[in-house]
Amino acid sequence: MSEPSRLEKGTAVIQKLFGSAAARVTMPPDFRRITVENLFGDVWSRPGLALEERSMITLAALIVLGREAELRIHFRGARNLGIARAKIEEILIHLAHYGGWPVAASGFRVLGEVFAAMDAEAKTAG
Amino acid sequence: MSEPSRLEKGTAVIQKLFGSAAARVTMPPDFRRITVENLFGDVWSRPGLALEERSMITLAALIVLGREAELRIHFRGARNLGIARAKIEEILIHLAHYGGWPVAASGFRVLGEVFAAMDAEAKTAG
Amino acid sequence: MSEPSRLEKGTAVIQKLFGSAAARVTMPPDFRRITVENLFGDVWSRPGLALEERSMITLAALIVLGREAELRIHFRGARNLGIARAKIEEILIHLAHYGGWPVAASGFRVLGEVFAAMDAEAKTAG
Amino acid sequence: MSEPSRLEKGTAVIQKLFGSAAARVTMPPDFRRITVENLFGDVWSRPGLALEERSMITLAALIVLGREAELRIHFRGARNLGIARAKIEEILIHLAHYGGWPVAASGFRVLGEVFAAMDAEAKTAG
Amino acid sequence: MSEPSRLEKGTAVIQKLFGSAAARVTMPPDFRRITVENLFGDVWSRPGLALEERSMITLAALIVLGREAELRIHFRGARNLGIARAKIEEILIHLAHYGGWPVAASGFRVLGEVFAAMDAEAKTAG
Amino acid sequence: MSEPSRLEKGTAVIQKLFGSAAARVTMPPDFRRITVENLFGDVWSRPGLALEERSMITLAALIVLGREAELRIHFRGARNLGIARAKIEEILIHLAHYGGWPVAASGFRVLGEVFAAMDAEAKTAG
Repeated sequence: MSEPSRLEKGTAVIQKLFGSAAARVTMPPDFRRITVENLFGDVWSRPGLALEERSMITLAALIVLGREAELRIHFRGARNLGIARAKIEEILIHLAHYGGWPVAASGFRVLGEVFAAMDAEAKTAG
Repeated sequence: MSEPSRLEKGTAVIQKLFGSAAARVTMPPDFRRITVENLFGDVWSRPGLALEERSMITLAALIVLGREAELRIHFRGARNLGIARAKIEEILIHLAHYGGWPVAASGFRVLGEVFAAMDAEAKTAG
Repeated sequence: MSEPSRLEKGTAVIQKLFGSAAARVTMPPDFRRITVENLFGDVWSRPGLALEERSMITLAALIVLGREAELRIHFRGARNLGIARAKIEEILIHLAHYGGWPVAASGFRVLGEVFAAMDAEAKTAG
Repeated sequence: MSEPSRLEKGTAVIQKLFGSAAARVTMPPDFRRITVENLFGDVWSRPGLALEERSMITLAALIVLGREAELRIHFRGARNLGIARAKIEEILIHLAHYGGWPVAASGFRVLGEVFAAMDAEAKTAG
Repeated sequence: MSEPSRLEKGTAVIQKLFGSAAARVTMPPDFRRITVENLFGDVWSRPGLALEERSMITLAALIVLGREAELRIHFRGARNLGIARAKIEEILIHLAHYGGWPVAASGFRVLGEVFAAMDAEAKTAG
Repeated sequence: MSEPSRLEKGTAVIQKLFGSAAARVTMPPDFRRITVENLFGDVWSRPGLALEERSMITLAALIVLGREAELRIHFRGARNLGIARAKIEEILIHLAHYGGWPVAASGFRVLGEVFAAMDAEAKTAG
């Protein structure tokens, strides 16, 4: 049995993280290919860190850089991996001291919105 | 037996992370007090994340923000906590994609310098 | 008469800066406690800078970092402290040269929105 | 015939880049004068770079700094100068690797919105 | 008596801020002209803020952006204007909470170096 | 004749940009592979932008982000591609207005150092 391709590995990681929400992100085909193959198929699929650890350091990066739109999708990813809301809040409290209060304050607002949306989706789907 | 003060808790965390290297950081007394009590005694001492997890998200923040001087001391902290060099390198590879290649390239250079210095210290101390 | 606690001092500063608008910011209880006690009770309450000076350097930080959501609340704080709109505009013109034109351009837009909202509130309340 | 003033040169560049959309940006008179004279009349009017090259490096700066509001107006400027959408997309793909994936992902979203708006305006005007 | 030119006004401000240290900064002639005329002659010379206030918000911007080389020269400028070291330290403590601990920690290190260098120069010159 | 691999294409671009200086950058093997294949072999090798244009937007990104170490190597790359020093200086003057004066001032210092080093190398090699 052959090793899965970078495309296959990347698609599998994206499915685990974002599920059907991945379809909402629109990108031109070339950037999508590079994202699936190079970012998710090559990097996110490496064995050196657990998927939960990759999710946590990705959240840390997005929080301190203040990248709200991407933080939104990765909060979703973190919840899908089973990371507890209390743990994400702890990350925000901690990182207020490394990226400044404003990025944490915005992070809490975005976190509340994402979890409320996912709760609503869960109810609808139930 | 009474609960340890914020000062005591902070001092204990700093000792675990940086050991004798903590003494090399010079700060005016007021900022030192706030750092020990508020940052290490109040935040780093909270139960919501393991110390290794706090170290990893701190590294993630410092890497993508490109804060070299502080990254230097926290690479030291990470090694003191027993986080393997291969794991830190994996964090750098991952974050090249969230903060850009330059912060990862600089991170690898700093990591090499810190680990070489700690190897030399270990030899001298042995 | 005893020294007010960090919580009391922080609450007093928040009241002076944001008045009833403070209630609109929602945070989980632990982050709120750290914000009131450590940031406003411990740091904003220190004597080394006048409250107006703290407001001005906070604006400067938020402007050049491009933190719009927090800039919005601190423009409000600056006006509540009696800092003139012309002075805030001067800060924006100055900082266009240190953080780049884009952060100043966005700052002017946000400033206009905040002052318009406060004018409307003043009319309603009058 | 005398050399045009900085005000005249700046106004001419702004007209070429943004056309009637320039009128939508509101600024207080002092900042507007500095922007027209110093930024567009003095700097954008210099001979050392072609206007298309200035547009491209401006886009690069705005993309990696994540300045969405200003990116919006400069995508418009780039299209008005005749820079092809495929070329702008290529810039975004390239810079994902220098400023991180999140700034590129946001850039693609903004680019799509700006070009859709300009297509709609072109239809209305036609 | 005619109004001084932007070049004259800029040169006067630079002299007040940096004295003979201004000569150490080397720039190509075109950028020097724009810096003296547009930044110092046009903006720093405006009446809306006291020179000490401009110095303070400039420090705030440079601190949170982590621009060490420029912070070095503006710490010098602040001291030349008579701003006390204790006040600058207070600014650093405050801004640790808006730009993160790392920029404040680096700021304290740079501040110590600049003030030590100026003390040494004062002794030599005495 | 088969299409060259991503490794071959990446190696060729790196050779054109950095020549023998590429050997001075040390990276662990995994990050080197990803850099050569994904960044230079996949992205830098795409046809949508001329190599000189990629160099210019890379410079723009590194300048406004203040990434000095990487700017150093890419100034070298720009000169190897035949981009004139006057053009790079023009980019710095322009970007002072988008990333702030400090990143341009630092950029001019680094540019001077890189070109002096390359002049010295050219003399030695001659």
